[in-house]
Amino acid sequence: MLGVNEEQALAVDLGGTHIRVAVVTASGQLSHRRDIATDAPDGPDAVIDRMARLIGEGAAEAGLGDDVPVGVASPGPLDTRTGVVLFTPNLPGWRDVPLVDKLATATRRRVALANDGNCGALGEVRFGAAKGVDDLVYIALGTGIGGGIVTGGHLIDGLRGMAGEVGHVVVAMDGPRCTCGAIGCLESFASGWAIRREAELVSRTADGEGILRAAAGGPLHAGVVAAAARAGDAAALQILGRAGRALGAAMGAFANIFNPKSIVIGGGVAHLGELLLEPARAAMASYSFVDVRRDLTISYSALGDDTGLYGAGALALAQFPRP
Amino acid sequence: MLGVNEEQALAVDLGGTHIRVAVVTASGQLSHRRDIATDAPDGPDAVIDRMARLIGEGAAEAGLGDDVPVGVASPGPLDTRTGVVLFTPNLPGWRDVPLVDKLATATRRRVALANDGNCGALGEVRFGAAKGVDDLVYIALGTGIGGGIVTGGHLIDGLRGMAGEVGHVVVAMDGPRCTCGAIGCLESFASGWAIRREAELVSRTADGEGILRAAAGGPLHAGVVAAAARAGDAAALQILGRAGRALGAAMGAFANIFNPKSIVIGGGVAHLGELLLEPARAAMASYSFVDVRRDLTISYSALGDDTGLYGAGALALAQFPRP
Repeated sequence: MLGVNEEQALAVDLGGTHIRVAVVTASGQLSHRRDIATDAPDGPDAVIDRMARLIGEGAAEAGLGDDVPVGVASPGPLDTRTGVVLFTPNLPGWRDVPLVDKLATATRRRVALANDGNCGALGEVRFGAAKGVDDLVYIALGTGIGGGIVTGGHLIDGLRGMAGEVGHVVVAMDGPRCTCGAIGCLESFASGWAIRREAELVSRTADGEGILRAAAGGPLHAGVVAAAARAGDAAALQILGRAGRALGAAMGAFANIFNPKSIVIGGGVAHLGELLLEPARAAMASYSFVDVRRDLTISYSALGDDTGLYGAGALALAQFPRP
Repeated sequence: MLGVNEEQALAVDLGGTHIRVAVVTASGQLSHRRDIATDAPDGPDAVIDRMARLIGEGAAEAGLGDDVPVGVASPGPLDTRTGVVLFTPNLPGWRDVPLVDKLATATRRRVALANDGNCGALGEVRFGAAKGVDDLVYIALGTGIGGGIVTGGHLIDGLRGMAGEVGHVVVAMDGPRCTCGAIGCLESFASGWAIRREAELVSRTADGEGILRAAAGGPLHAGVVAAAARAGDAAALQILGRAGRALGAAMGAFANIFNPKSIVIGGGVAHLGELLLEPARAAMASYSFVDVRRDLTISYSALGDDTGLYGAGALALAQFPRP
């Protein structure tokens, strides 16, 4: 059970559709959960008010003092040095929002901010699949691809806290345009939207029969492609094989750059499992030194949908340690 | 002048053709230089004996006590945790050589070891073009491409000290095979050998006239291609443009991953200057977020041929600080 003196934090997972709040303890207990709709179209101030209200409710219910800090996992890019969210495609109207200042004022608490991918990396090394690991690359495969990197026990955040964009590294300098505007990013091959794009293209051809059958009249998405692939459909297997190969190429680059102990794959698209990871692991050998692969573990996130909450908690506990 | 109490280190730059030794002070003075042929075919023990002799001579000449440590910049890959050079293409017979143990025994000094690229990064932030910078990507463009990364003021060395291989990151997942065995590495586009390979191929065609003229009957290499490009030769400009574009793609990926303050370009091929950097800078905008480029400085190494010595000195000073 929770020790009376155990350090705690209030964790906020700010998403495009939901705001989630919970109390996280230093030993990884998650309690007093709250979850409401973000209603992002109402704009930043309304969303920040909702966050503050949820934090207040959770803190009151858990009987937390004013000294318990808040950690926020937010979509990015954001500037952790100033606590400003620069913009985020999933939250309309969010441009240069001083989230830390506003939330600190509204809650009268210390507030730590990082993007959800970086929080995820912190959560994995503190509570998750890479517990105790000093050198981690965390890749969150969702509709987009985010992530974060821990090296020598420290999160890489860079000059303004914008580091760790593992989805936006080139894997094909003459590849397709990414939604970020750049060319040939990992995300433009292995994300949910990239897999859907390929499925839509192939569904217009005779090769797309198996995928259309799996969709059963519904919309195409990565899960549909996975279902078709499991039924042995060649086009679906080819789409996931290509996505996996791009993922493996990036993982190989990360292995050579970071010599990590662990690569953890999280996010919704990670549910495709070995359909994506098997070709990724195979490809990785063609994109990295054998010596950096020797002690490297590749695993799935153990935190699932709570990665953001665990990560936000880990962030606050790391940034505001109790004296 | 050198203060009596200033901290010092013995720096060793171990190369395929030369061993260089010098005394480096904490304020960046380099003195008591020595330089002999590596004579690598004699094997590891003979080379280590030569290193130890040069260190002894330098230390005696400078009047250094036994407590002054040694830093070695070595070709890699190597395991800095155990002090073992795993293998190195330019030093025949070097496989699993316990360099730190052997050199410590021979010199009776503390010995720090890192690969030359990682040392270069340490040298640049301590003494060079990125002095005082906490977040640096250093890219050494030579026959091959090495480098190192400093983030939050710390060198990224990873689980076994093999991190920082910035030349061996994918830029084209379906690109050419690299000498490391992997596919589409930055090195297979922008290194000295890659530029020479392109020059040799184009020299067999009618487009190769300008390059052959610049070679004047001598061997083809990056300098020849640069000379032809300066004379306006289209094929030479195309070769360097492509190499620069690959470099820019990798620099963009590094900007998104590390959000660095500084990217420093060193190594012999850096002498091609803007012929390579101009297309690299232009391409970088297509491979990175505008926000991470805003405060980023791209510059040339200020340490030149002494990068290895400065870096080895910085390594020893960091690893063995005077109490």
